[in-house]
Amino acid sequence: MATEIFEYKQPFTLENGIVLSGYHLAYTTLGKLNARKDNVVWVFHALTANSNPADWWPGLVGESRFFDPAKYFIICVNMPGSCYGSIGPLEINPQTGERWYHSFPLFTTRDMVRAYKPLKDFLGIEKIYIGIGGSMGGQQLLEWAVEEPQLFDHIVALATNAQHSPWGIALNASQRICIETDATWQTNTQEAGINGMKAARSVALLSYRNYDTYNLTQPRDKKTAWPVSHNFGGEAAESYQRYQGEKLANRFNAFSYYRLGQGMDAHDLGRGRGSVEEALRRITAKALVIGITSDLLFPPEEQVRIADGIPGAIYQLIESLYGHDGFLLEYEKIEQALRHFIREDVLSYLKIINR
Amino acid sequence: MATEIFEYKQPFTLENGIVLSGYHLAYTTLGKLNARKDNVVWVFHALTANSNPADWWPGLVGESRFFDPAKYFIICVNMPGSCYGSIGPLEINPQTGERWYHSFPLFTTRDMVRAYKPLKDFLGIEKIYIGIGGSMGGQQLLEWAVEEPQLFDHIVALATNAQHSPWGIALNASQRICIETDATWQTNTQEAGINGMKAARSVALLSYRNYDTYNLTQPRDKKTAWPVSHNFGGEAAESYQRYQGEKLANRFNAFSYYRLGQGMDAHDLGRGRGSVEEALRRITAKALVIGITSDLLFPPEEQVRIADGIPGAIYQLIESLYGHDGFLLEYEKIEQALRHFIREDVLSYLKIINR
Repeated sequence: MATEIFEYKQPFTLENGIVLSGYHLAYTTLGKLNARKDNVVWVFHALTANSNPADWWPGLVGESRFFDPAKYFIICVNMPGSCYGSIGPLEINPQTGERWYHSFPLFTTRDMVRAYKPLKDFLGIEKIYIGIGGSMGGQQLLEWAVEEPQLFDHIVALATNAQHSPWGIALNASQRICIETDATWQTNTQEAGINGMKAARSVALLSYRNYDTYNLTQPRDKKTAWPVSHNFGGEAAESYQRYQGEKLANRFNAFSYYRLGQGMDAHDLGRGRGSVEEALRRITAKALVIGITSDLLFPPEEQVRIADGIPGAIYQLIESLYGHDGFLLEYEKIEQALRHFIREDVLSYLKIINR
Repeated sequence: MATEIFEYKQPFTLENGIVLSGYHLAYTTLGKLNARKDNVVWVFHALTANSNPADWWPGLVGESRFFDPAKYFIICVNMPGSCYGSIGPLEINPQTGERWYHSFPLFTTRDMVRAYKPLKDFLGIEKIYIGIGGSMGGQQLLEWAVEEPQLFDHIVALATNAQHSPWGIALNASQRICIETDATWQTNTQEAGINGMKAARSVALLSYRNYDTYNLTQPRDKKTAWPVSHNFGGEAAESYQRYQGEKLANRFNAFSYYRLGQGMDAHDLGRGRGSVEEALRRITAKALVIGITSDLLFPPEEQVRIADGIPGAIYQLIESLYGHDGFLLEYEKIEQALRHFIREDVLSYLKIINR
């Protein structure tokens, strides 16, 4: 495994018209590009993850996993605006010599994949055998598959959508309101809005889980008498919400969180392309679209829309209690779906050869 | 319609052991108690409502509605801890001469109904023909029906539960975290934490609606070009989240919001009574329990549990797009259920008479 920095030193125009003098991306590679250059797997991470999928998707990426570096050349880029090595709000704006903070521009999912293209060329990649991503990672994958239909042989989009929903926007907006509520948010410090981000994370968590998940993992205390404290508190579900906020605050910042949420909200394959359906029809990759039964944030109807829109796409619904987090937790079911999808493909290749 | 204040001037012990020197309740009555005293309807309001159900439930309460003051003597009490006339955090603690603010004690749903008993006696009520409440109002109704099984002829519990769920607690906890994020929260002022409460309200709203509701009421803008603003914003769903927070801030306060949420979280019919099921078995009223198909906050399985637990209870599921808010918005379906329930009851009385 190697994590490197790719520097792009030419002007780069964002969807909103802002022109950057350049940018840099942190990317991790596992395995090696083979001589035929046909073993590339491009993994797209979700909101707060980093460029090493072996870290946050250990059930699928790593030695003897489906995405085995012995077989595949696996690439994952930290999305611009994040804080794991790529250009982001806590870094220095070269044009001012100061940290970006609030002035960090919005990267839409479309801007993100446009920023990945020079890196792809730099790595000598002409074809991506499999592109895979869940949630906001899936949004980027779909954008790229629409932008450059010839690039991907296969795409696997999990728990994602073609256009971010009003419900998803409302959820992210509430999280932005949480950050804005923190009086430190308007300061130019790295810790600005950090308590607001803790609150935001506890809200996000609700959308990643559901009623059943909380029943299962944070059951009510079996108190028959009143707790020592005079006021209510100390139930597992409450402690859990607080703990998860603290945990994220140790590894993320409110500027990245705020701006990446806006990037997700702006996601719309149909923008400037007539409609979402017209955009999806451009995709020529073999597509597997996976939904999770209990996903509140990206409910299965969104994946049905994607699969209905991409010519020949396969839709698979995975049964899970874990809600949206199922795309990270249901390794075995996802692996099974992948084996089926890629094997079917091999068989169809064999059919072509035997014809 | 008349809204009056009931003063209770004796010591009152809360579940947590705190003893109040007294309390007062604002209550609204519509119609008149008849000579046989058998026309009493007791309505229980939900989290941020007031004691006038004709105000927040106009489809069900009022002239020519199902709960017609010409027929029924309708009572609703502002729950203690709220800010619509009953004892609450912005009022003066008589023992200190200062406003309660953070020191305002927790009223559990059980404490609340215990506080209603002296008012019931004061009004000369021996029997309640129909008790009805949704959400936190339903929690109180169930508590009272367990505490005094002989009091109610009929109970109608909508979109509520027998024990607040870990999921519900997590949602309320996130809202408390929002309030705590507001740096003004620790001050002793009436406006303390008000921005935090706006964030909390926007979170609560998510749990009152769902994916489909937002699609329907806050559809995405049909932009094909990029908005004037350099950053994402201005989508209907985002404006709506902000607007609803502002709206509540004009009529509520963060202290009441915080403490009432804890009261909801502490709700547990089973506390000190063996189990939830043992408590439900005590109820002798004829019970109608209504669930709403799309309710994320109090999903139908919670009403099934209630109906399974109360001997002879009727369970009815109402089809609605409006999520938890369906209990406020689906007047016609609720009225139909009520007519059926009360008519059935009349028929069964006739059968007894004719026997």
